[in-house]
Amino acid sequence: MDKEIRQASHWALAFRPTGTPTAENFRLETAELPSLQDGQVLVKNIVTSVDPYMRGRMNDVKSYIPAFQIDEPLTGGAIGEVIESRSAALPVGTMVSHFLGWRTHAVLGEGEATVVDTRAIAPATYLGALGMPGLTAYVGLMKVAEFKEGDAVFVSGAAGAVGQMVGQLAKQFGASRVIGSAGSPEKVQHLLDLGFDAAFNYKDGAVAEQLKAAAPEGIDVYFDNVGGDHLEAAIATLNAFGRVAMCGAIAQYNATEPTPGPRNLGLAIGKCLTLRGFVVGQYAQFGGEFREKVAPLLLDGSIRTDTTVRHGIENMPNAFLELFTGGNRGKMVVEI
Amino acid sequence: MDKEIRQASHWALAFRPTGTPTAENFRLETAELPSLQDGQVLVKNIVTSVDPYMRGRMNDVKSYIPAFQIDEPLTGGAIGEVIESRSAALPVGTMVSHFLGWRTHAVLGEGEATVVDTRAIAPATYLGALGMPGLTAYVGLMKVAEFKEGDAVFVSGAAGAVGQMVGQLAKQFGASRVIGSAGSPEKVQHLLDLGFDAAFNYKDGAVAEQLKAAAPEGIDVYFDNVGGDHLEAAIATLNAFGRVAMCGAIAQYNATEPTPGPRNLGLAIGKCLTLRGFVVGQYAQFGGEFREKVAPLLLDGSIRTDTTVRHGIENMPNAFLELFTGGNRGKMVVEI
Repeated sequence: MDKEIRQASHWALAFRPTGTPTAENFRLETAELPSLQDGQVLVKNIVTSVDPYMRGRMNDVKSYIPAFQIDEPLTGGAIGEVIESRSAALPVGTMVSHFLGWRTHAVLGEGEATVVDTRAIAPATYLGALGMPGLTAYVGLMKVAEFKEGDAVFVSGAAGAVGQMVGQLAKQFGASRVIGSAGSPEKVQHLLDLGFDAAFNYKDGAVAEQLKAAAPEGIDVYFDNVGGDHLEAAIATLNAFGRVAMCGAIAQYNATEPTPGPRNLGLAIGKCLTLRGFVVGQYAQFGGEFREKVAPLLLDGSIRTDTTVRHGIENMPNAFLELFTGGNRGKMVVEI
Repeated sequence: MDKEIRQASHWALAFRPTGTPTAENFRLETAELPSLQDGQVLVKNIVTSVDPYMRGRMNDVKSYIPAFQIDEPLTGGAIGEVIESRSAALPVGTMVSHFLGWRTHAVLGEGEATVVDTRAIAPATYLGALGMPGLTAYVGLMKVAEFKEGDAVFVSGAAGAVGQMVGQLAKQFGASRVIGSAGSPEKVQHLLDLGFDAAFNYKDGAVAEQLKAAAPEGIDVYFDNVGGDHLEAAIATLNAFGRVAMCGAIAQYNATEPTPGPRNLGLAIGKCLTLRGFVVGQYAQFGGEFREKVAPLLLDGSIRTDTTVRHGIENMPNAFLELFTGGNRGKMVVEI
């Protein structure tokens, strides 16, 4: 179809949000696909990813990942099929993982696509448990928080794509106790079904009190996806030499004012606590180790994952916005 | 003098302070010294130590070091001379370092006293640069903050016993830049005289702005003796993979309400920062390494230290209280 007019759709950033974004911040556009150069492939996207970290990219600030640009197509994780190829390495029919999501089609160079095997593992899993969220959980727990057998682990946002993996990996690797927090009774029940030792709904009462009740002997590791009162409660509950992996602060992503830090941070001195922030991109070298250890656990059912699926390119912004209102359980993806 | 009545003085905790302590919280008492048992020595104290951490011991809270008890003698670092001995290892005339300060005389077992050589090194130095504050500086910088050559280092409370050592050790070990904050123009000048590359008076304006001006290329290590706005400014200024050694929070020791944490703690995620609290007692195993590396630097004048001396057992509480109003430069001790 090289010579035909080829139309494809993508989402662009219409304008930057102040506070909580809305669908109006996004604009669906149609554009003609370019002809392929040697070494390039045309990929039809099958599933595309929406992730909380994308909220940060909507702001015009220098960060670990470039900001989205106004009027420019958004990017993100996606899985698609090669439907046209000028690359011997990526023939038509190959399934690939890549970073040109938020669109129906992508033109990619060979170096921008990773072949994935979707026979035994669903495409969406490569965006979740075996993808960036899974690697985030793995390196955050094992490298950042330096988890060791016997640790009691607390993870917030535990029903999310990262949190589900953190809790289950901790159990697999010998945690003495795994506690999760989530935002609905259904999610709390689901965490217990996944093997968490305790779980609570943070909307039911003060996080500090609920955590203390769930962890009478304290915690050794806190995996923070939330920030705010969760972090403060964790600091109060951490045992001496406890570690915090600071992964995300979804409670603060849409804040327009600076949010107060934990009022009890001074406890970190006497308790010899370590709080360490991280972004998964800085731990890419552990990707091989991660897949080697975690893929078998997924294949044999030791670790179970959820995917929340929305359908249609036109629903991507709403799927993204649902991440901030708790609409997802596990990984949220959009099938194109 | 075994058979004589032997009177000695000590300070006891009269009642616990709420907020800033006053001299009324302390009570000077006289008591008869007990007769020595085999293996014990009687030590006449020469210099005794007052340290900011003692404020924490005045509260009735579980912490890394037991709380002072009401009506009980206070304790702390001291250097004294053996004046009576039933220990072959510690004959009369031996100079020893020990932990029964806040008093004129102490009865010690052999295991409670460490022999010190006060011919080349002044007794007070064993309470400061070569003692607990020096070890705190050393392990905080090298082990907790994992200092490496080329790092730019910021230390708050830089004119204090710990801060002076942090800055000078960082220079000795190859810091690219050392910045200190203090609370008076005289202290700022003194830091520059000690070889700090930049120093500022935190009372002159916003710490964040002053630090940014002093560290145009950012900092890699922050040694925190202060907490509060200093910690927030450091988080804003730290480069990627920066480390904070959380040693003290003197700005908050007398607070009666929870103090807000740094409002920008979320920056630790994207910048991959590590904040690690510590108490020197957990790093005692590095004492030998510390003395081996630091004693030569003190003896050859590469590192200079100050001692602020107050005189007389009756002035100990006031010397202690001066720590919170900036009355000391370098180590504060009381000569008995």
